[in-house]
Amino acid sequence: MSASESFVDDYLPALLAQAAQLISAEFHAKVEAHGLSGLEWRILATLADSGPLTVGSLAQKSVSKQPTVTRLLDRMEQQGHVERLAYRSDRRITLVQMTPSGKRMMSTLIRAARDHEAAVLAPLGPNRSQTLKDVLRRLIASRLPPDPEPTKQLEHGGG
Amino acid sequence: MSASESFVDDYLPALLAQAAQLISAEFHAKVEAHGLSGLEWRILATLADSGPLTVGSLAQKSVSKQPTVTRLLDRMEQQGHVERLAYRSDRRITLVQMTPSGKRMMSTLIRAARDHEAAVLAPLGPNRSQTLKDVLRRLIASRLPPDPEPTKQLEHGGG
Repeated sequence: MSASESFVDDYLPALLAQAAQLISAEFHAKVEAHGLSGLEWRILATLADSGPLTVGSLAQKSVSKQPTVTRLLDRMEQQGHVERLAYRSDRRITLVQMTPSGKRMMSTLIRAARDHEAAVLAPLGPNRSQTLKDVLRRLIASRLPPDPEPTKQLEHGGG
Repeated sequence: MSASESFVDDYLPALLAQAAQLISAEFHAKVEAHGLSGLEWRILATLADSGPLTVGSLAQKSVSKQPTVTRLLDRMEQQGHVERLAYRSDRRITLVQMTPSGKRMMSTLIRAARDHEAAVLAPLGPNRSQTLKDVLRRLIASRLPPDPEPTKQLEHGGG
């Protein structure tokens, strides 16, 4: 840290939070025009092209609390965007997946999100953009607790 | 994006939010042991070694809403951690700065924060850690609106 910099200008969690907040806020304005909150967008985006997820995994990936996700899922299930199903080998485990109509609704928004992301990353160029994402994925993996959930098995288990 | 990756695993805002959340949550547990909320920590850390800041600038740097910051500042002013002062050439502008006792309280926490950050960054090595911070600072600068505030002048204005 140089002498002229303040602590938070060189503190990784502060830089991450500020970058995340600035970039997300820009796109959330577009999302709200489609009648979704920023958090609803994050939940639907997480589900959009994944397989069925547990609520816990969905909460972690969408950076939100599990009870909040459960409450929003109730609303989104009523609207027909998502559906719940029981995990095939243990029916006590509930999984969530998007409905076909939910997927259609999201395809427009995800295209807009990719365009916005491309505009954000353009000044960095393709190499530094890729490095940034790789480093972030590595950081996330290093801080996550080992996954106790059966989604991996489910993904490989076929029909 | 490879075919096996889901959208959010390659979407920059999602990666930033997840990394920020995971890393901050770990340190907030330590901060709470000192009687501060995560947001109070972010506000105090922002002020800790900066000059006086406007409430707007403090809200942006601590990633929070201005009315929330104002409310927490009232509490932290009563506790003697911060004080408000009028900007010298325009007394309608209020600036916030830490008191000496607030700075003493923060020095222990900032040392702990630097230790935690070093542990988080250790697996990346010094070069990639520096690159990550540089890229984040560049991203933040590219998304910030031009600064309409007089803090720059104040910093160079002397006593």
